[in-house]
Parts: sequence; structure tokens; C-alpha cells
Amino acid sequence: MSSSVSARQGARRGRPGHDLESVLAAAAQLFNERGYEATGMEALARRLGITKSAIYHHVESKEELLKLATDRALDGLFEAADEARARDGRAIERLEFLTERSVHVLAERLPFVTLLLRVRGNTEVERRAVERRRAFDHLVAEMIERAAEEGDLRPDVDPAVGARLLFGMVNSLTEWYRPDGGMDVDALAVLVRRTAFDGLRLSRDD
Amino acid sequence: MSSSVSARQGARRGRPGHDLESVLAAAAQLFNERGYEATGMEALARRLGITKSAIYHHVESKEELLKLATDRALDGLFEAADEARARDGRAIERLEFLTERSVHVLAERLPFVTLLLRVRGNTEVERRAVERRRAFDHLVAEMIERAAEEGDLRPDVDPAVGARLLFGMVNSLTEWYRPDGGMDVDALAVLVRRTAFDGLRLSRDD
Repeated sequence: MSSSVSARQGARRGRPGHDLESVLAAAAQLFNERGYEATGMEALARRLGITKSAIYHHVESKEELLKLATDRALDGLFEAADEARARDGRAIERLEFLTERSVHVLAERLPFVTLLLRVRGNTEVERRAVERRRAFDHLVAEMIERAAEEGDLRPDVDPAVGARLLFGMVNSLTEWYRPDGGMDVDALAVLVRRTAFDGLRLSRDD
Repeated sequence: MSSSVSARQGARRGRPGHDLESVLAAAAQLFNERGYEATGMEALARRLGITKSAIYHHVESKEELLKLATDRALDGLFEAADEARARDGRAIERLEFLTERSVHVLAERLPFVTLLLRVRGNTEVERRAVERRRAFDHLVAEMIERAAEEGDLRPDVDPAVGARLLFGMVNSLTEWYRPDGGMDVDALAVLVRRTAFDGLRLSRDD
């Protein structure tokens, strides 16, 4: 390493935009573009315009980046689920609340959720992320079962398949939603919730 | 190559289970598991238990495998769209027909559609697949616009977003549907169609 690189590192270290959050966001984006396995710390340092040791100032390893990044997504989803479960009323209302809140989590933590959805469980960190994701899916399926018991779901909807379709629709945001696309997140959350629960068709009581 | 390998190749070449279709299905599965870039013809030959030259009996290159495999998915989707467009009646009925038929295409051509949805357009073959996929999405968005003009869609549904959500739900099958899971495809197609158009909620006219 030349002295100019060290000087650059020293100058950049404390700068805004290179705190842990921006390192995590850049890491998640790069993992999504090139795959987690194929991305090295060197490439991440180049993307951020800092040295590898500046990254190691924040995290111990690439695995820790993956853990923290997937936890950003999972923590957001579980906070939404906790809020939903704390609400009074019918299960279908908790589900509708969770659907809207999940759209917000996806829109606001897009690279982290995109990364989470691609994790397949090949390492300890990935297995843990997959397990937490399954626990979230289980909470959703439980709410759907409860809503079915309360007579609020169409009787032909199998709760497990209903949960898959509901979150299949929500998670599709990672494929097409762009934060800079000018779409209002509140309006999008309402649209997703209404499409999932009331369908695309204009019904007689709309 | 030893003579035993040649003998094996000769013996296997004409066998059932190693025709073009089974080579394509194995290739799509392997590309999905390991990524297209990371998968070599050698690994594919090992998976099939045949030699590389037995694969080159069917196709000229890995790129041709990708082209044929993604075309299996795209051809199925365009056949479904052509059938839908040839139908009389309202646009929403054509859309509902297309939704059901697309579920059948996904369930029956699962590894091919999974592969198609992961293609990002890095090579000529990939760009062509991405373009055909966009053309399909465009057909769906047109049908949704037409259905909105005919007054059959909820007025808050933006046609482009509605198309994304509809196929976000349909395409989520590649994440969770398993052909050996014992789920009836006809029933699943009806469930997806009803969920997308009428929602999960039991409405007053159900």
C-alpha cells in the first residue's frame, strides 16, 4: 500500500457516509449484484472508496456483514409482526396491518430484504437467517389460520398457501420497486393491502 | 478419455431419459442451484451421468442450453397469452384465464421459469430472454389497462403496479411450489386466480 492510500484512508474514516450503516447498505447491494460467495472485501472496499482495514474497523468478517445486513431486514419484519400482534380486534385486521407495515419495511430496507430472500442456508449465519425467516412465515400463517377460524377468509383459502401468496405479492417488491421511482410508499402499502384482501376486481360494495 | 468412458457414452446416447428434454431439465436445475455462470458442462455431464460429448450431441454450447431452457418458459407463457387474447368477452375474463394458465405453465415448467426469473441480461441470449419477458409483462399490463377502461378493476389500481402485483403473486410459485408436494395444480390455479381478483377476504357476495 502506498502512503497516499493510507492518507486517503485516514481522511475518509470518520467521514459521514462511511459509518456502519453505509458499509452495510453497500455490502448488501454488492452481494445482491454479484452474489455473496463471489464478492470479496476488496471489491466492497473499492465500491466504498475506502480500504479493507476501514471496513474491518466496523465488522470482523464478511459473514458478520451478512449477519448484520439480513438482521436489518428480519428485525424490521419482526417489529412489524410484534406491532400487529399487539393490536386488538380481528385477526384479519392484524394481517392487513402487517401487510401494510411489511411493504414499508421492504421499501425502506430494500437491499437488506432482497439479500434475505436470496439466502439459502449454506453457512451458520445463512441457516440462522433462513430459520428467522421461517419463524416470520409461521407467524403470518398463524394469523391467517386465526382469520379463517374467525370466518373472515374465503373458505377455499388454505392458510399455508394463502400466507405464501400474500407474501409472494409483498416480496415481489424486491423485483420491481425502485425507491427513486417517485411512488408514494403509503399509497403503495394501501394498494398492496387492498389487492391482497379485496382483489383487483371492482366488487359490488366498492 | 478411457475406452470405458467411450463405451459408456455409446451405450447411453440413445437411452430414454437422456434426450434433449431431460438434458435441458437437468441443466435448468443445475443453473438454478449453482448459478449459470458458475456451472460448467463438466458438472452437467456428471449430474446426468453422461459425457460432455453426449451433451454436445444435443446442443452446441452452454449458451444454447440457456436459450432453449428459457424459451421453454417463455413459449409456455406466450402460448397462454395468445389463448387468452383469442377469447371473447371482457378483458378481466381474459386476465383471469391468463392467470390460471400461467399457474399451469409455472407448475409444469418450474425449473425453466425459475431460471427465466433469475436471468439479468449479461449476454446476448440473456438480453433476448429479458426482452421477451418484458414483452409478456407488457401484454399483461395492456390487458389490465383494458379491464380498467371497461370498469372492472378497482379505480385505485394503477395498471402497471397491478400487473406487477398479479405476476408477483403468480411468480412466487417458483419460491415455494413443489411438484411432488401433492397439491392439485387445477385447484391451485383457481385459488391464485380468485385470490388475485377477489382477494383473501370473505366478501358479502361469496
